[in-house]
Amino acid sequence: MLFYYFSLTAGILSLLFAIFVAWEVMKKPEGTPKMQEISKAIREGANAYLNRQLKTILLFAVIIAIALYFIPLKGFGLALTGAFIVGAVTSYLTAYLGMSVAVRANARTAKSAESGLKEAFWTGIAGGAVTGFAAVGFSLIGLSLLLIGLGANAFTVLIGFGFGASLISLFARVGGGIYTKAADVGADLVGKTELNLPEDDPRNPAVIADLVGDTVGDCAGMAADVFESYSVTLVAALLIPVGLIASGIGITGGIPIGAAIGYPLLIACLGFVGSVVSIPILKKFGKTPNKALYWGIGAAVFVSAVLDLVLTSMMHVGMNMFVPVLSGLLLAFILFWVADYYTGSKSRFVVKIANASVGGAGTNVITGLAVGLRSTWLPVFFIVLAILASYATGGIYGIGIAAVGMLSITATILTIDSFGPITDNAGGIAEMAGLPANVRKVTDHLDALGNTTKATTKAYAIGGAALSATALLVAFTQAVHLTSIDALSPVVMAGVFIGALLPFVFASFLMEAVGTAANLMVNEVRRQVKTIKGLIQGKAKPDYARAVDIATINAIKSLAVPELIAIVTPIAVGLILGTRALGGLLVGMIPASLMLALFMANSGAAMDNAKKYIESGHLGGKGSDAHKAAVVGDTLGDPLKDTAGPALNSMIKVVSTISILLAAVFIAYALVH
Amino acid sequence: MLFYYFSLTAGILSLLFAIFVAWEVMKKPEGTPKMQEISKAIREGANAYLNRQLKTILLFAVIIAIALYFIPLKGFGLALTGAFIVGAVTSYLTAYLGMSVAVRANARTAKSAESGLKEAFWTGIAGGAVTGFAAVGFSLIGLSLLLIGLGANAFTVLIGFGFGASLISLFARVGGGIYTKAADVGADLVGKTELNLPEDDPRNPAVIADLVGDTVGDCAGMAADVFESYSVTLVAALLIPVGLIASGIGITGGIPIGAAIGYPLLIACLGFVGSVVSIPILKKFGKTPNKALYWGIGAAVFVSAVLDLVLTSMMHVGMNMFVPVLSGLLLAFILFWVADYYTGSKSRFVVKIANASVGGAGTNVITGLAVGLRSTWLPVFFIVLAILASYATGGIYGIGIAAVGMLSITATILTIDSFGPITDNAGGIAEMAGLPANVRKVTDHLDALGNTTKATTKAYAIGGAALSATALLVAFTQAVHLTSIDALSPVVMAGVFIGALLPFVFASFLMEAVGTAANLMVNEVRRQVKTIKGLIQGKAKPDYARAVDIATINAIKSLAVPELIAIVTPIAVGLILGTRALGGLLVGMIPASLMLALFMANSGAAMDNAKKYIESGHLGGKGSDAHKAAVVGDTLGDPLKDTAGPALNSMIKVVSTISILLAAVFIAYALVH
Repeated sequence: MLFYYFSLTAGILSLLFAIFVAWEVMKKPEGTPKMQEISKAIREGANAYLNRQLKTILLFAVIIAIALYFIPLKGFGLALTGAFIVGAVTSYLTAYLGMSVAVRANARTAKSAESGLKEAFWTGIAGGAVTGFAAVGFSLIGLSLLLIGLGANAFTVLIGFGFGASLISLFARVGGGIYTKAADVGADLVGKTELNLPEDDPRNPAVIADLVGDTVGDCAGMAADVFESYSVTLVAALLIPVGLIASGIGITGGIPIGAAIGYPLLIACLGFVGSVVSIPILKKFGKTPNKALYWGIGAAVFVSAVLDLVLTSMMHVGMNMFVPVLSGLLLAFILFWVADYYTGSKSRFVVKIANASVGGAGTNVITGLAVGLRSTWLPVFFIVLAILASYATGGIYGIGIAAVGMLSITATILTIDSFGPITDNAGGIAEMAGLPANVRKVTDHLDALGNTTKATTKAYAIGGAALSATALLVAFTQAVHLTSIDALSPVVMAGVFIGALLPFVFASFLMEAVGTAANLMVNEVRRQVKTIKGLIQGKAKPDYARAVDIATINAIKSLAVPELIAIVTPIAVGLILGTRALGGLLVGMIPASLMLALFMANSGAAMDNAKKYIESGHLGGKGSDAHKAAVVGDTLGDPLKDTAGPALNSMIKVVSTISILLAAVFIAYALVH
Repeated sequence: MLFYYFSLTAGILSLLFAIFVAWEVMKKPEGTPKMQEISKAIREGANAYLNRQLKTILLFAVIIAIALYFIPLKGFGLALTGAFIVGAVTSYLTAYLGMSVAVRANARTAKSAESGLKEAFWTGIAGGAVTGFAAVGFSLIGLSLLLIGLGANAFTVLIGFGFGASLISLFARVGGGIYTKAADVGADLVGKTELNLPEDDPRNPAVIADLVGDTVGDCAGMAADVFESYSVTLVAALLIPVGLIASGIGITGGIPIGAAIGYPLLIACLGFVGSVVSIPILKKFGKTPNKALYWGIGAAVFVSAVLDLVLTSMMHVGMNMFVPVLSGLLLAFILFWVADYYTGSKSRFVVKIANASVGGAGTNVITGLAVGLRSTWLPVFFIVLAILASYATGGIYGIGIAAVGMLSITATILTIDSFGPITDNAGGIAEMAGLPANVRKVTDHLDALGNTTKATTKAYAIGGAALSATALLVAFTQAVHLTSIDALSPVVMAGVFIGALLPFVFASFLMEAVGTAANLMVNEVRRQVKTIKGLIQGKAKPDYARAVDIATINAIKSLAVPELIAIVTPIAVGLILGTRALGGLLVGMIPASLMLALFMANSGAAMDNAKKYIESGHLGGKGSDAHKAAVVGDTLGDPLKDTAGPALNSMIKVVSTISILLAAVFIAYALVH
C-alpha cells in the first residue's frame, strides 16, 4: 500500500532530522580538557554498562528467537523470528544512539552555559532531540519495511516486532533503573549525609557512577520504553481493524480496511511533522525554559491536531474519528500538566511535603506517599474520559486511534525527557570541573528543570503505556477469538487477581535490588574514603571505576528474576488457566500498574522537589533538620520514581505483547478452555 | 424456617458466652489506685472519642435512613430503613461493648502479670473474647430476627442490614485509624526521638491519647470491620442462592433453596462452636503464648471443619460442597501464617529491613516497602486457589460458601486481635504505674505478642474483606440483572479503571490526615514540654486531656471527605455510566484494594518489628544510628498498617453494599444502559 511508503519516508526523514541535530550538537565546543576528561569517563562507564547488558539481552533474545522459530504453529517461524529481531534491534539502536549523543552533549551543554541560559538550553534540547527523532525514525522504518516486505502476511507477525521492542525496553528500564538509583542513593547516603559533600563533588567515589546512571536510566531506559509504547501502539492500531474485519464485526462507520490501516500510519507521520515544528519553538523560547516546554509541547499538539483534522476530512474515515485523535493529543498535554501540578517545584503539594519535613523524616515520607497516592486521580479521570469519548465516536477502533494520537508526538516528549539526563550531567561536569559561579548558576537552573522534565514526561510514558496496553488488550481478544472477558467467570476473576498482583511483586524486586545495590555502594564509598589517603582533602583521586563496576554488576545480576516473572506469568496463566484467565490478567494488570506507577513516580518526584525547595532556602535551608528529613524522603523517592514506577510501563507491555504473540499456542494447548 | 431459629440460638449463646467471659474479666482485681487512675483516663478518652464520633455517624445515618425510606421504588421503604438501622445498631453495639470491656481489661491484665505470663495472657485473651463473641452474637441475632420477622421479604432488604454494618465500620475504621496513629506518631516523634523518653512514659503529654488510640483503632475499629465482613458475607451467601433461583439459573448440583439458605447459616453456627472450643485451648497453652495462638486458631479450624463435614453429609447439598467450606477455613489459617512469615519478629524479611537500617533511614524504608510489596503474592495465590476450588466444586454458590467458611471462625480471630490493644494498654499502664521489672517483663512480652496478633489478624480481615466483596460482586450482578461484566466493553473498562483508582485516592486522604494530625500533636507536645515547668523532671503532670482532644477533633474532622468519596463514587458511576460500569468498578476495586491493603499492612508491620528487632539488642540496639533509621520506618509504617491499609477493607464493603442497595435505582435512572 502507498501508506507504507509514506510512513517509511517519514521514518527516514525523522532519522535524518536526528542526524542533522546530532551534527548541530557535535559541532559545539566540548570545553576544557578537564571537562572532556569527565565526559569521557561517563561515556566509558555508560558503554561498559551497555555492553554488559547486551550480553544478557542476547542470551534471552537468542533463546526466544529460537523458540519462536520452532513453535509448530501457523504464522510462526522465520517471519515471526525476523520481526522479533527487527523490533529488538531498532529498539536497541534507538537507546544506543540516543545515549551516545547524550554522553557527548553533556560537556557541550556545560560549555555553552558560558554563553547564557538560552544557548545552554538549546544545546540540551538538541541533544535530547536526537533520541526523540531517532526513536520515531527507527520505529517507522522498521514497521514500514515489515509491512512492505511481507504484505498482508505482515499482520500475523507484526506483534513479533512489538515483542522485540518490549523485551529491550524491559531490560533497559529495569537494568537502567536499578543502576541509576543504586549509584545515586549510594553516592548521596555517604557523600551528602555522612561527609557533607555537595552534589557531584569530585571527591565522591560514586560520582561518575551516578552520572553514568542518569544516562543509562533516564536516557537509554526511557528511550527504549517510549520507543516501545510508540511501536506497540501502532501495531495494535493496525491489528485492531484487521481483527474487526476478520471476525466479521466490521469497523465502526463501515470504514474500508485500507483507510483504517492507513489512518493511524498517517497520524504518526503528521505527529512527526508537529514534533519537528516544536523544536524551533523550544529554541525560540529558550530564555524562559519553563515556559518553553509548555510552548513546545503545545505547538506539537496544535500543529498535529490541525494536520490531523485536515487528514480526517480527506480520508474515508468520517469526521467523528477526529475525536479519538484529539482526545489522545490533549491527553498528552494534560498528563504533562498534571505531573507538573503535583510534583513541580512550585506545586502546593511539594510545599506541603516540605512543611511536613519539620516534623521529621517520618512525617515527610507519610506526606510524600499521600501526595503520590492522591496524584493518581486526575490522570485516570482524563484517561477514562479519553477512552469513553474515543469509543463513543470511533468504537473499538477509536481506542487504538486515541492511543496513536497521544503517542504521535513522541519525538517532542522524548526530546524534552532526554534533555533531563544531559543537563543533569552538564551540572555534574560543571561542578566537577570547577566552572565559574555564573556558569554553574545556568547549569543548576537547567539541572532543576531537567528534574521537572523527567517527572512530567514520565507521566506521559505511564499514561501512554496504559493506553497502548488497553489497545493491545483489544488486539489480544481478537487474537485468541474471545468475544468477551466476563469477570463473572471465576477463571477470569482469578486472572484479574493475578494481574493486579503482578505489578506489586514486580516492583518489589526492583525496590529490593536498589536497596541491596545501594548498600553495597555505600560500603564501597565508605571503604574508599577510609583507605585512600588524602581523598577528602582533594589530594588523591577516588577509584571511580570500581564504583561504576559495582553498579553495573548488581544491576545486571538483579535483572533476571523480575524479567522472568514478567515473561513467565502470562505464559503460565495462558497455558494453565486458559485464554479467558489471561484476558482477565490483562484487565487486572493494566489499571493496577497504572495506579502503582503514577503513585510511585509522583511520590518520588514530589519528595525530590520538596528537598530542593528546602535547599533553596526555605524552612532553614541546607543542613537544617527539615533538610535532613527531606533527604530521607528523596532517598525513598529515588527508586520509586526512577526504578520501580517506570519499569512497570515496560512490564505491562511485555505481558501484553507476549500474550498476543503466543495466542495460537494458548488456544491449542491450554488446560482450561 | 427452622434454620433461622438455629442461628438465632447460636447468636444468643454467643452473646451469653461474651457476657460470661466479660464477667470472668471483671472479677479480676484492677490493681493499685495509680493503675486504676490511668485506666480511668484511657476509658474517659475512649468514651469522649466514641461519643463525638457517634454524633457524626448519626448525622450520616439519619440522612441515609430518610433517603432509603423515600426512594420511590419497590422493596424500599420502612423495611429497608429498619434493616439498615438494625445493621448499624448491632455493629455499633459490638464496637462499644468490646471496647468497654477492653478498657477495663487493660489494668487487670497488667495486674495479673504479677501472677505470671500464663495468667496475664489469659486475662488479655478473655478480654478480647468479649469483642469476638459479641460480634458473632449481635450479627447472628440481628440477621436471624430480620429473617424471622420478614420471612421471604427479608431477602429484598437484607442488604440494608449489611450496609448499616458497613457504614459503622467505615467510620470506626477510618476515624479510629486516624486517631490512633496521629496520637502514636505524635507521641513517638517528640517523646522518643527528641526527648529520648521510653515508650509510654508518663511525662509524655500524648501518652494517654496514644493508649486511647489503641483501643479506638485496634479494638473498636477492627471489631466493626470484622463484624461487617461477617455480616455481609452471610448476607451475600443468602442472596446468591435466592438470586440463582430467581434468575432461573439454579444452584449447582440442584440444591433445593431451603438447604441452600440453611447451609451457610449452620456453617456460621458450627464456626461459633469451633471458636468456643478455641478459648480453653488458648488458655491451656498460655505458658507459650506464641504457640497458643497457632493452637487456638488450629483448634477452631479443625473443630469447625469436622463439624462442617458432618453437617455436609447430613444436608442435601452434596459432599462436594465441603471443598468450599474447607477452602475458606484453611484460608483463614494460611493468611494468619503468611502475615507471620513476612512480618513476625523472627521473619527473615524483618531482619533484612533491620540490616538495611544500617545504611540509614532511606534504605530502611526502601526495603520495608519492598517487603510489603512482595508479601502480596502468597495471600493472593491462596485466595485465587480457594476461589477456583470453590467454583469448581460448588459453582457461584460455592464462592459464597467459601467466604462463610473463612469467616465462620471470626470469634476466635477477633479474640486474638482484641488481645492486642488490651496488652498494649497493659504494657503502658505497667510502665506508667512503675510496676516492678519482673511484671513489666511479662507485659512487655505480651505487648510484643499483641503487635504480632494485630498484624496477623489484619491479614485475615483483609482477605476476608476481599472474599466477601467477591461474594457481594456476585450478589450485585444478580441484583442489577447482569449476566456478564464484559471488560471488553469500554464502559466496563472505564469502571475497572475507576475501581482501581478508588483505594489509592481513599488511602491518600487517610495518610494525609495522619500526617496533619500528627504534626498538630507534635506541636502540642512540644508546647507542653516548653511551657509546663518541671514536666521533664517528672514533677509536674502534663495536660493529657488536651492531647486527647486534639486527636479526637482531628480524627472526626478528617472523616468526612474519604467517607463521602466511598459513598458517592459508586452512586455517581451507577447513575452516570450505568450498572455495567458499576460492575466494572467492583471488579477493578476488589483486587487493587486487596493488594494495596496487604502491601500497606505488611510493610508497616514488618518495619515495626524491624525496629523492635534492633531494640532487642541487634545492630547496636536502642539509640544506635540503625535504631534511629528504624524509628523512621516505624513512623511511616504506622499509618500504613493501622490507618490506610485496614480502612480499605471497610471501603470496599461499603462500596459493594451500596451498589447492591441502590440496584433498583441504577436500573431505573442510569444515563447509560
